[in-house]
Amino acid sequence: MSHNEIASFADRLADAVRRTGSVTCVGIDPRLEQLPASIQRIADNGTLDAQAAAYTQFGCELIDVVKDRVACVKPQAAFFEQLGPAGMVSLGQVIRHASDAGLMVITDAKRNDIGSTATAYAQAYLGVGEASPWGSDSLTVSPYLGRDSLEPFVEVCDARAAGVFVLVKTSNPGGGLLQDRLTDGQTVYARVAELIEELNQGRIGKSGYGPIGAVVGATYPEQLAEMRAAMPSSWILIPGFGAQGGTAQDVLAGFDDQGMGAIVNNSRNLIFAHRRPEFAEKFGDARWQDAVSAATDEMNAVLAQRIS
Amino acid sequence: MSHNEIASFADRLADAVRRTGSVTCVGIDPRLEQLPASIQRIADNGTLDAQAAAYTQFGCELIDVVKDRVACVKPQAAFFEQLGPAGMVSLGQVIRHASDAGLMVITDAKRNDIGSTATAYAQAYLGVGEASPWGSDSLTVSPYLGRDSLEPFVEVCDARAAGVFVLVKTSNPGGGLLQDRLTDGQTVYARVAELIEELNQGRIGKSGYGPIGAVVGATYPEQLAEMRAAMPSSWILIPGFGAQGGTAQDVLAGFDDQGMGAIVNNSRNLIFAHRRPEFAEKFGDARWQDAVSAATDEMNAVLAQRIS
Repeated sequence: MSHNEIASFADRLADAVRRTGSVTCVGIDPRLEQLPASIQRIADNGTLDAQAAAYTQFGCELIDVVKDRVACVKPQAAFFEQLGPAGMVSLGQVIRHASDAGLMVITDAKRNDIGSTATAYAQAYLGVGEASPWGSDSLTVSPYLGRDSLEPFVEVCDARAAGVFVLVKTSNPGGGLLQDRLTDGQTVYARVAELIEELNQGRIGKSGYGPIGAVVGATYPEQLAEMRAAMPSSWILIPGFGAQGGTAQDVLAGFDDQGMGAIVNNSRNLIFAHRRPEFAEKFGDARWQDAVSAATDEMNAVLAQRIS
Repeated sequence: MSHNEIASFADRLADAVRRTGSVTCVGIDPRLEQLPASIQRIADNGTLDAQAAAYTQFGCELIDVVKDRVACVKPQAAFFEQLGPAGMVSLGQVIRHASDAGLMVITDAKRNDIGSTATAYAQAYLGVGEASPWGSDSLTVSPYLGRDSLEPFVEVCDARAAGVFVLVKTSNPGGGLLQDRLTDGQTVYARVAELIEELNQGRIGKSGYGPIGAVVGATYPEQLAEMRAAMPSSWILIPGFGAQGGTAQDVLAGFDDQGMGAIVNNSRNLIFAHRRPEFAEKFGDARWQDAVSAATDEMNAVLAQRIS
């Protein structure tokens, strides 16, 4: 299939949100010690290969549970890389399984570099099907290296109908050290937002959004409102909901008037829902998939109520 | 071997520089179209597996040529990731081969994240031998997420006698967009330098240096001098020499009074030396290894003359 026939990343994400009625993004962050017992057993021999097989099994089963409930998933590359090359094979398998299941895939790898090296990362991750070896719809990227470090990603987004989410204002307590620094009345994160909005010009699809999204944490609701206004063409990926303390009220400001333009990530509270007291009692470890589906439905309902 | 028996990263790097008399770092940035013909042939069937095999062969032969000539090599993760999971297997093989050859390995992957996710990246890459699946002595990291994104890397450095190089002031034209922004008389890059110097306190080894190094480009000699003064405890990794325009004069300011404390990376001009007119004529593509050794000796000589 020619890439010209694929709708833009932003439009596909908008369609997926409309189709599923969900703005939830399921973060796939496998950690061996928190996996259900039946999955942990796959890794019993203690090798990295076995652990990678457990991550693949967990990731794929998880995807089968959530595929009709949410628009997108966000595999966290770090936990796969932690297992070495075997883990990267697993990451590839999980991304393919999600994509084949019709989910939009945001690979969370926070890649960044300059020139042809940035192009290599972009070509690695961006583009579904045969377009790239990893096969992601989009990738998170870090902006410290400046505009000429983002442009190679934008070029590959254009060529492959893909997207990126640039770190703008992150959810961690220390994020402000550099991001909040004020120069002539403008913070560093606001400067990044300005750059993103510039890069999206000329690239805005039917949905009203462009390929360059932004990461803005749920833990700073005022800045989220400021960033929504500063980047009207940018999808916002909101981390920090749930385990990190962000509430449904906190993420409201990330959405546009139609309740679009943002997706809210949750990892631990969804994928390890079998460990939450309310679900542990009801489903137990053995029915972890039921815990995931219940937790996902619950998050969808909470967000739908707020946004509509 | 217990990690307590390994000297600190900074001290091992100092020893390696003294032993080899070289401050050259060989950047391993494989690009298919620039590889010698004999290596390109390995990838003739056009699959990613075959291309990864070519990268492994090239990386390992390269290492065999430079292992007694330089202290360290810097594999660039992006070019391996571009090949998907097969490329990551190749990256692991190249890192192992370099480490087994007695070279210090800086994996250039510019990783960054927060909390336990940053810990996962650190545990993935940091620590030689069995300490980590990738087996690197050190890793480049990006600071946009702040202090609490660097601390997990520092903790793993402590546990595994490893190091990191934090992006401070990069060599690309657009690096200044965020890095040069001035707040109360201090640039963003100077704030990062201050943080690095703080993190190195209490961690300084016999060499006078700590585990937290800095990346400062050769293309900004004045800032390099400023950064040398601001971070007396920090090894500086200097990119931008050679192909990007930095000269031996430009990198001088990165060194301390003993000619230590900095390493100068060069990728293209060394690893693809067979394509430089002066070496192409003398050695031709078939003797690409001789071109690499001649180019490496030349860079060593130019830097030794300047620094001593």
